[in-house]
Amino acid sequence: MSEVKKTEIGQLGEFGLIHHLTNNIKLKHSSTLKGVGDDAAVLDFTNKKTVVTTDLLLEGIHFDLTYTPLKHLGYKAVVVNVSDVYAMNATPKQITVSLGLSSKMSVEAIDELYEGIYAACEYYDVDLVGGDTTSSLTGLTISVTALGEGDKEKLAYRDGAKPNDLICVSGDLGGAYMGLQLLEREKRVYADNPEAQPDLSGYDYILSRQLKPEARKEVIELLDKLNVIPSSMIDISDGLSSELLHICSQSKTGCRLYENKIPVDPTTSMLAEEMGINPIVTALNGGEDYELLFTISQDDYEKFKDAGDINIYIIGHITEESKGSYLVTNADQEVELQAQGWNPIKNND
Amino acid sequence: MSEVKKTEIGQLGEFGLIHHLTNNIKLKHSSTLKGVGDDAAVLDFTNKKTVVTTDLLLEGIHFDLTYTPLKHLGYKAVVVNVSDVYAMNATPKQITVSLGLSSKMSVEAIDELYEGIYAACEYYDVDLVGGDTTSSLTGLTISVTALGEGDKEKLAYRDGAKPNDLICVSGDLGGAYMGLQLLEREKRVYADNPEAQPDLSGYDYILSRQLKPEARKEVIELLDKLNVIPSSMIDISDGLSSELLHICSQSKTGCRLYENKIPVDPTTSMLAEEMGINPIVTALNGGEDYELLFTISQDDYEKFKDAGDINIYIIGHITEESKGSYLVTNADQEVELQAQGWNPIKNND
Repeated sequence: MSEVKKTEIGQLGEFGLIHHLTNNIKLKHSSTLKGVGDDAAVLDFTNKKTVVTTDLLLEGIHFDLTYTPLKHLGYKAVVVNVSDVYAMNATPKQITVSLGLSSKMSVEAIDELYEGIYAACEYYDVDLVGGDTTSSLTGLTISVTALGEGDKEKLAYRDGAKPNDLICVSGDLGGAYMGLQLLEREKRVYADNPEAQPDLSGYDYILSRQLKPEARKEVIELLDKLNVIPSSMIDISDGLSSELLHICSQSKTGCRLYENKIPVDPTTSMLAEEMGINPIVTALNGGEDYELLFTISQDDYEKFKDAGDINIYIIGHITEESKGSYLVTNADQEVELQAQGWNPIKNND
Repeated sequence: MSEVKKTEIGQLGEFGLIHHLTNNIKLKHSSTLKGVGDDAAVLDFTNKKTVVTTDLLLEGIHFDLTYTPLKHLGYKAVVVNVSDVYAMNATPKQITVSLGLSSKMSVEAIDELYEGIYAACEYYDVDLVGGDTTSSLTGLTISVTALGEGDKEKLAYRDGAKPNDLICVSGDLGGAYMGLQLLEREKRVYADNPEAQPDLSGYDYILSRQLKPEARKEVIELLDKLNVIPSSMIDISDGLSSELLHICSQSKTGCRLYENKIPVDPTTSMLAEEMGINPIVTALNGGEDYELLFTISQDDYEKFKDAGDINIYIIGHITEESKGSYLVTNADQEVELQAQGWNPIKNND
């Protein structure tokens, strides 16, 4: 086994580490007037509206370093934030990244994390413009804030859905959740028998859904191309039920969701059944798929014939509020939707 | 002893807690189009430049809950961020607040923290527009991002200082550091003898410098009134030496700082001497004073005669880079300035 170089963070110090991590940044956007290196970054969103969102990821709550490669973690930390910007029908432009680092992390490990961050900045075309770096007495802490820009008349909020609007989703659901179940299962197997090799073959798709999710920028580009402004939109981080109920509650509507319309990948279904989980439950309550859930006026339905390669699934429709929010099952029964998505507060009870 | 109500966070859940903490928010700025409650906040900075900065505060590294009241901690978390916005000669307008909460924290404790956050939002006239709330397996984590706006031609960066510019500071230094030393001393006394009462009388000023620092918004207002644009500016979070060296290194200049000009409050000096610390060292290396350090052209010197109640101290001048960066002591010796400010990375070695 070759020796992996490990430089202690303390050898660099705060400013040395910041320099080490940021000296190769090349700013891409004309809206980024000043990036890393001053008290604050300076941005110019003339004529556009500014969109801002933030997410906090904590070791042991949001990720487990025993099976999460640091590069993927860095990538995902950016993805979850730009996904929120897309969910406003806006375009991400800048991010800030704050890190709390435990002293057991080497500079090389932080470099791996940053490799993922920079790869996501490249793919999603955002400038890293600031942040804060500190030590942590405990686990790794990652706080990312994303800024984006949008046209005022095109921004999609959660409160604009209207009765008869169609409910759309940009891809299959439940995969990220089953990826997590698989990783947790293999972790338990390994704990019982460290000689055992993890059995992950054939599960590439759902593992990538969990470990390297993507935000759906091409869906935002498609909406722009088709000239469709969703009446409401949200990204699916906590599960379909929970997100759809957010839209209904903020729009003061109800909904009907059809079990047979909800897209679930065959790998997801197969593993769910193997583990004794109803596949549809992984879609309703699983979370972390980062697909976009949005509603459109029926008048816009025809436009999606030009969607090309991008599958947009119509999974139900919006109703009057008094009709409630229900899943219509394959047996044609109506089951009330409940927000049982992943809850980072309850999770820790 | 009366019983303090303690509601477990899990009773509310993530969305319940967010609603509990944010349902009384009143947005004040026309630039805040949409605050808490969607995937992202939406802001409108038409004609102004957007300034963004972020800070991460971790329990055990940045604060000690054994002597930090939660309300003060919430207030300070906002202060350290708006201070960075002022240090750009800009005006803070919005903040986002992300919290990682350990399960031992009650809802009432989080309310106290938020009371401080809201009090600072009120005083600094900023809207709370978003954030993220999650549980933490370990200590309390607070990540704040502040956004502000400024006129392009008035923004003050770190790299604009010119030889012969005067070096100014907006208030006395070292107080926050000595406040921390005092709190740490009393904590040790208490640990040795829990019957002992903390002896904090006569130290109100330095304790408030540590526990309830203020960002210098009135200095920014003064600069505007006097029609002075600093050639460079930074806020003092890590100590005067470290911050001045940032300005010199980014501006490619040197400096002369005069020991007898550096403002140190008598309480700070007295306690420092009692503890065997050179008072000037508390100012040079102490940090957390959140005063503004800036440089002005000599032509602007006269304008400060109209500064009214606000004391601006001239503590030195900028030189050519080749002349180096030195402190001129009271004994008229030149001592090279070194960045020995508080280092959140080294701190944890």
